[in-house]
Amino acid sequence: MPAIAFGRFDDSFSFGSIKAYIAEFISTLIFVFAGVGSAIAYGKLTSDAALDPAGLVAVAVCHGFALFVAVSVGANISGGHVNPAVTFGLALGGQITLLSGIFYWIAQLLGSIVACFLLSYVTGGLTTPIHSVAEGVGAFEGVVTEIIITFGLVYTVYATAADPKKGSLGTIAPIAIGFIVGANILAAGPFSGGSMNPARSFGPAVVSGNFHDNWIYWVGPLIGGGLAGLVYANVFLPSDHAPLSSEF
Amino acid sequence: MPAIAFGRFDDSFSFGSIKAYIAEFISTLIFVFAGVGSAIAYGKLTSDAALDPAGLVAVAVCHGFALFVAVSVGANISGGHVNPAVTFGLALGGQITLLSGIFYWIAQLLGSIVACFLLSYVTGGLTTPIHSVAEGVGAFEGVVTEIIITFGLVYTVYATAADPKKGSLGTIAPIAIGFIVGANILAAGPFSGGSMNPARSFGPAVVSGNFHDNWIYWVGPLIGGGLAGLVYANVFLPSDHAPLSSEF
Amino acid sequence: MPAIAFGRFDDSFSFGSIKAYIAEFISTLIFVFAGVGSAIAYGKLTSDAALDPAGLVAVAVCHGFALFVAVSVGANISGGHVNPAVTFGLALGGQITLLSGIFYWIAQLLGSIVACFLLSYVTGGLTTPIHSVAEGVGAFEGVVTEIIITFGLVYTVYATAADPKKGSLGTIAPIAIGFIVGANILAAGPFSGGSMNPARSFGPAVVSGNFHDNWIYWVGPLIGGGLAGLVYANVFLPSDHAPLSSEF
Amino acid sequence: MPAIAFGRFDDSFSFGSIKAYIAEFISTLIFVFAGVGSAIAYGKLTSDAALDPAGLVAVAVCHGFALFVAVSVGANISGGHVNPAVTFGLALGGQITLLSGIFYWIAQLLGSIVACFLLSYVTGGLTTPIHSVAEGVGAFEGVVTEIIITFGLVYTVYATAADPKKGSLGTIAPIAIGFIVGANILAAGPFSGGSMNPARSFGPAVVSGNFHDNWIYWVGPLIGGGLAGLVYANVFLPSDHAPLSSEF
Repeated sequence: MPAIAFGRFDDSFSFGSIKAYIAEFISTLIFVFAGVGSAIAYGKLTSDAALDPAGLVAVAVCHGFALFVAVSVGANISGGHVNPAVTFGLALGGQITLLSGIFYWIAQLLGSIVACFLLSYVTGGLTTPIHSVAEGVGAFEGVVTEIIITFGLVYTVYATAADPKKGSLGTIAPIAIGFIVGANILAAGPFSGGSMNPARSFGPAVVSGNFHDNWIYWVGPLIGGGLAGLVYANVFLPSDHAPLSSEF
Repeated sequence: MPAIAFGRFDDSFSFGSIKAYIAEFISTLIFVFAGVGSAIAYGKLTSDAALDPAGLVAVAVCHGFALFVAVSVGANISGGHVNPAVTFGLALGGQITLLSGIFYWIAQLLGSIVACFLLSYVTGGLTTPIHSVAEGVGAFEGVVTEIIITFGLVYTVYATAADPKKGSLGTIAPIAIGFIVGANILAAGPFSGGSMNPARSFGPAVVSGNFHDNWIYWVGPLIGGGLAGLVYANVFLPSDHAPLSSEF
Repeated sequence: MPAIAFGRFDDSFSFGSIKAYIAEFISTLIFVFAGVGSAIAYGKLTSDAALDPAGLVAVAVCHGFALFVAVSVGANISGGHVNPAVTFGLALGGQITLLSGIFYWIAQLLGSIVACFLLSYVTGGLTTPIHSVAEGVGAFEGVVTEIIITFGLVYTVYATAADPKKGSLGTIAPIAIGFIVGANILAAGPFSGGSMNPARSFGPAVVSGNFHDNWIYWVGPLIGGGLAGLVYANVFLPSDHAPLSSEF
Repeated sequence: MPAIAFGRFDDSFSFGSIKAYIAEFISTLIFVFAGVGSAIAYGKLTSDAALDPAGLVAVAVCHGFALFVAVSVGANISGGHVNPAVTFGLALGGQITLLSGIFYWIAQLLGSIVACFLLSYVTGGLTTPIHSVAEGVGAFEGVVTEIIITFGLVYTVYATAADPKKGSLGTIAPIAIGFIVGANILAAGPFSGGSMNPARSFGPAVVSGNFHDNWIYWVGPLIGGGLAGLVYANVFLPSDHAPLSSEF
């Protein structure tokens, strides 16, 4: 069984590691600028009308396309996580050390916050909309929704990118990772908001100063992503692929 | 000519086979959660209005993206069928034994049912919409529609994934498989519903307790998928690629 | 300079050639069923309202996805032309003999006609909408539009699929070919209809018995596709890649 | 550190270079014809209504698909820049000489102008809409928006296409480059217009004779693209990959 690895402090400060944190920062900035931007754009075009199906398509396609690209551009430098839940799920499956993971989280959260401050500036001060559960949906249902859809996302990361058996799937892995997020937003957007990503939810909360429901987008994605990491690593990864098991 | 193979009982219970059933269960769950979820989401956003073109785009793109991913994440473990009609079409073309196929079906149906129960829970009890033919369309026309569009789907599975001559097409096979479903829903959605997949139709029927027209989504897809398997395997597959012909 | 080749009669009746004609028939049937189907679906959902932007997205995305798949599934058997203008452009650039090209045309036209008859049946007799230029657009402007957009399509076929220098582009060639059609419909749809394909336009004309403007979708695409073939083959193809120059 | 290279005059007039300029001209023509065409199409379908979310999806998807194809078809001939800001960003990172870059610019601008004249003709004289900042958005905010989104675009070009470590990412590079533009338009469209490309903005300005705000789409994209080139080349490119550093 792959095991969680804490990691060595000096490894997490190597030249390559610092490049990886910069890459995560930039990838998350690109993703959140487009994703949150598309939500603000909908409000701009409709004078803040309630979301309609065309708007849902706009927001979902934007997140899907932008995440695909953000994962691509980071893939060869940091692995292109762009998401604390992905980093956590990969750590639980033994694919990254916890220590490096913490720096990934910091880079991702900073990227998201900077993206949202930039959006606030360039839109002339429009509100950055936060994630929260829809009317008629309880907090616990929101958490379960985020668990399920983040499970799907991190399972996709494992099957197409982390699994050494991936073969030619690796070529289209970033597209699959982006498009499962697009698909899940089309389903979950009108219920939980369809975050799957604590960083994506945290930036707007910081910039708008509104942390209502924000815990949902930490708890749900981390449980879902962690679960996917444990399931995939233990059921589907070859047992000799536990690179870090002795370092914990 | 490739022949149908019944398969050996112990092969269908090997460690690898059980992993494959788990993979089919998870892939189908991911696909159906997103696909059926997008139909529920449309109702939520529009207070259950009749489908309009923007909603059709949302539902079709969601199914296309989600199926692409569901096929991808299963590809190296179970082949990524995610659909009893695909499994049936591959069995008729000699690509999987009937016995393994039956366990694939069970896994797919369970994945769909679980996805629909989860949707029912996380949406606060909203109805999971079932497939049925539209007003002005007869049951037989619905069956023929499903035959044609499932033929296209399973033909795509053969040409891009099962054919040993596929070459670099194999890399984009999951995208092609997902996108033919997206395209076919854009055409057939307002007529037969555009299922192409008995598991996709069965889960909502079970959870809503409404089996009206459900037989259409068994008969049509199985005939269409089976036909594609027979045509492709006999016309286009190399004759020496009939791996299982003596075991029937 | 690559030259046009007439071809030998027996080559055009080899076993492989007949498979290629069957593949063109099936690919075109799949493409036209989805593409024309999406136009009928729009009418069904809106009670035949005038096209709006959401409907244009539905129709364009459907054509883009379906053509990508139709090209993919034919790629290794017939080359996946799915379009008389592509076949003509490839013939002018020396990539297929004229004689085989004629059989390709017949297969493509038959595939389109059968698809439209099936659509007429399964939709309970709804009209298959034909291509014609929009109000305020002249026939000659329609021809020029079709020349330009078909030039783009056939140029894409050459650059991504026929050019021996294509390298890894070949892997994504079918996606590029499908998506240029999707993009061009989003631009030209409300003016010329955005056909780029005489077979796509011919089937609905036959089934509805309405050949008004149909000549535009022969003249424009054939000029545009032929021009692309001549330009690409003479400017960009290596001069030693004129395989058929002595047979004309 | 990679350095800017001026280039030798005779290299920029070699046979291969002239082919590259022709390829840039054709690629930009294809891209701008579709992209600007989709904006005109929206006006045609809605009698020039204000942009709504469905229209934004149409325009963004069209630009994303068309740019993907325009980059693909030029990739093996000119590198598929299709954008003066990309050429500038690549020049600053030492990937193309300044002299060749100037000819690329000329080819791109001519391609865009010709595309817009053709659009004006085939639409029966409809106005080609220019890029300008939306009401409530200042010119400086527009510039900053274009800097950010063009940074994302050119960073993507580097990470997926120019970086020698790109590996299998190179196969999907044109899709990533097209889709980041699609995503950024979904976010920035209703604010700055979402150009990222001086050639895309210049053609409509020339043909409509309206250069209002046009400077924004030179200053923003060139700063953003240049910044991406400097950052990527100095932080992420291997230091021995400075092919042209002595020729400046």
